[in-house]
Amino acid sequence: MTTARAHTNIALIKYWGKKDPDLMLPYTSSLSMTLADYYTETSVHFDASLDADQFYLDGRQTPAAKVSAFLDLVRQQAGRQEFATVTSANHVPTTAGLASSASAYAALALAASTAAGMELSATELSRLARRGSGSASRSIAGGFVIWHRGHDDATSYAEPVATQPTIPIRMVVVLVNGGQKAVSSRAGMQNTVATSPFYSSFVTSNEAAIAPMQTALANNDFTMIGELAEASSYQMHATMLAAKPALSYFEPKTITALQHVQQLRQAGIPAYATMDAGPNVKILTLAPFVDRIVSTLRQDFKTVTVTQPGPAATLID
Amino acid sequence: MTTARAHTNIALIKYWGKKDPDLMLPYTSSLSMTLADYYTETSVHFDASLDADQFYLDGRQTPAAKVSAFLDLVRQQAGRQEFATVTSANHVPTTAGLASSASAYAALALAASTAAGMELSATELSRLARRGSGSASRSIAGGFVIWHRGHDDATSYAEPVATQPTIPIRMVVVLVNGGQKAVSSRAGMQNTVATSPFYSSFVTSNEAAIAPMQTALANNDFTMIGELAEASSYQMHATMLAAKPALSYFEPKTITALQHVQQLRQAGIPAYATMDAGPNVKILTLAPFVDRIVSTLRQDFKTVTVTQPGPAATLID
Repeated sequence: MTTARAHTNIALIKYWGKKDPDLMLPYTSSLSMTLADYYTETSVHFDASLDADQFYLDGRQTPAAKVSAFLDLVRQQAGRQEFATVTSANHVPTTAGLASSASAYAALALAASTAAGMELSATELSRLARRGSGSASRSIAGGFVIWHRGHDDATSYAEPVATQPTIPIRMVVVLVNGGQKAVSSRAGMQNTVATSPFYSSFVTSNEAAIAPMQTALANNDFTMIGELAEASSYQMHATMLAAKPALSYFEPKTITALQHVQQLRQAGIPAYATMDAGPNVKILTLAPFVDRIVSTLRQDFKTVTVTQPGPAATLID
Repeated sequence: MTTARAHTNIALIKYWGKKDPDLMLPYTSSLSMTLADYYTETSVHFDASLDADQFYLDGRQTPAAKVSAFLDLVRQQAGRQEFATVTSANHVPTTAGLASSASAYAALALAASTAAGMELSATELSRLARRGSGSASRSIAGGFVIWHRGHDDATSYAEPVATQPTIPIRMVVVLVNGGQKAVSSRAGMQNTVATSPFYSSFVTSNEAAIAPMQTALANNDFTMIGELAEASSYQMHATMLAAKPALSYFEPKTITALQHVQQLRQAGIPAYATMDAGPNVKILTLAPFVDRIVSTLRQDFKTVTVTQPGPAATLID
């Protein structure tokens, strides 16, 4: 049995929209921070005696269709045919307001490929994880990670940014709603790509933000990091809002949290908001300002957690 | 003394952004509904004995700089030099969540030009009102009104749409916040035009919605009217949200109202949201559905009012 741990990540320069839904090739490159405190641990055991894949998630047997489809890719690459038992535990509580698909498919890619006898490079692992969930490609690497959009399966992969920042970047996660979202990312992306008159401008603008963000990270320029991250997030949500019908993940308390961020910044606190395809708000800041931000947000929110850059996916046992 | 009354209006296909801030030429054409229940009454009296313009708004003497600048245009066109006393009463309570600048400058244009001895055509009046506030150009006409963006002072004016709908269109106004907004429309437009990567797509998309809206009005196609209006509104707000820094007029209860609209529609009620540069939500519907919509919104909002298409600007007494 082979066990891997992979951490989830938050995109600072966003991914939204697939150019190739089969190969999961994105329209834009994206840039993320892997998160220390939220991860998935997954064990894979290929077993010739099984007549179907078995999947246990957080202790419960769970339909294995998606996992099986991913294992088929691994079996194909490894030239193997056995079914497998997959046991997975998410340490990304739904109450964190963070998606677990990134850490889930990154851990599965590492555990399954290793269990199947392959020794994939980080690039190959990232390409494999991408096939499960686009953002999983970024969870193979630690710290700040760039996913090059590429133009085919070989060229679309993630790797750590060349020069990692040394300033103490932190992320405050504000839970607005931990429930299932009404529109999945997959459906939301499709609708946005198909109907938003702003989508092509989003692609151009978002792609153009990648290089400045790399520069900002290399320069430890937190103001620029925050501004670029916030702009990419708002532009992604604006692109959805312009779709037909309009797609919005905002809830009333999302606005409350965003207003707090604005007011904190007006008070001189470095705090920048970023949101994924859901109502929760994540706030980028520096370590000395975490307490002030957390206590401010706790006025209106019960669940406010803090995390920081985390490590690459790794084998454990 | 000459007195005019002009009604405010709500844009169904939006106006956002000036190509020429002096002449108030917009980047896109827009299409509005003049509103029955909200209007401004303004009296103008040119008086050779005055040594400055005097402005009384809702019974109080008020700084006259903006009014004077507008009167200068009228004096220039009329070849007159006297200062004037201007007395204005807004029957657009701030608690309605509707801007009064449209009705204010439309009433002022009609009263001042008449008092100065001119007899302007509706087109000329619309061009004059435009110089005070872009949306005022539309408040010269009644019912459903198109403001042709034009390319110079002569060609940028509003007029009634060729074929007015005969279905009983109503507008439910949901007051989220009647206070002064933090960012004026003027400043918001400038920032959006200058920094939003989506602005040129907004211009193209919004301009392209004008002809279909005219067709929908001519065909009494309320579903199409509502869908086009809602899309134009969301696209305008999306364009702002993508500006740097992001500009949002959404408040938490704005989202609550928008969620109600969505749920009403899911329940089969024809209800479409439109918003201007502020947090309030206006809901387009048909007369038979007004009671249901009002009672639903009253669950969360104290001030919910209803209006319908209103008349052109007119001289009174």
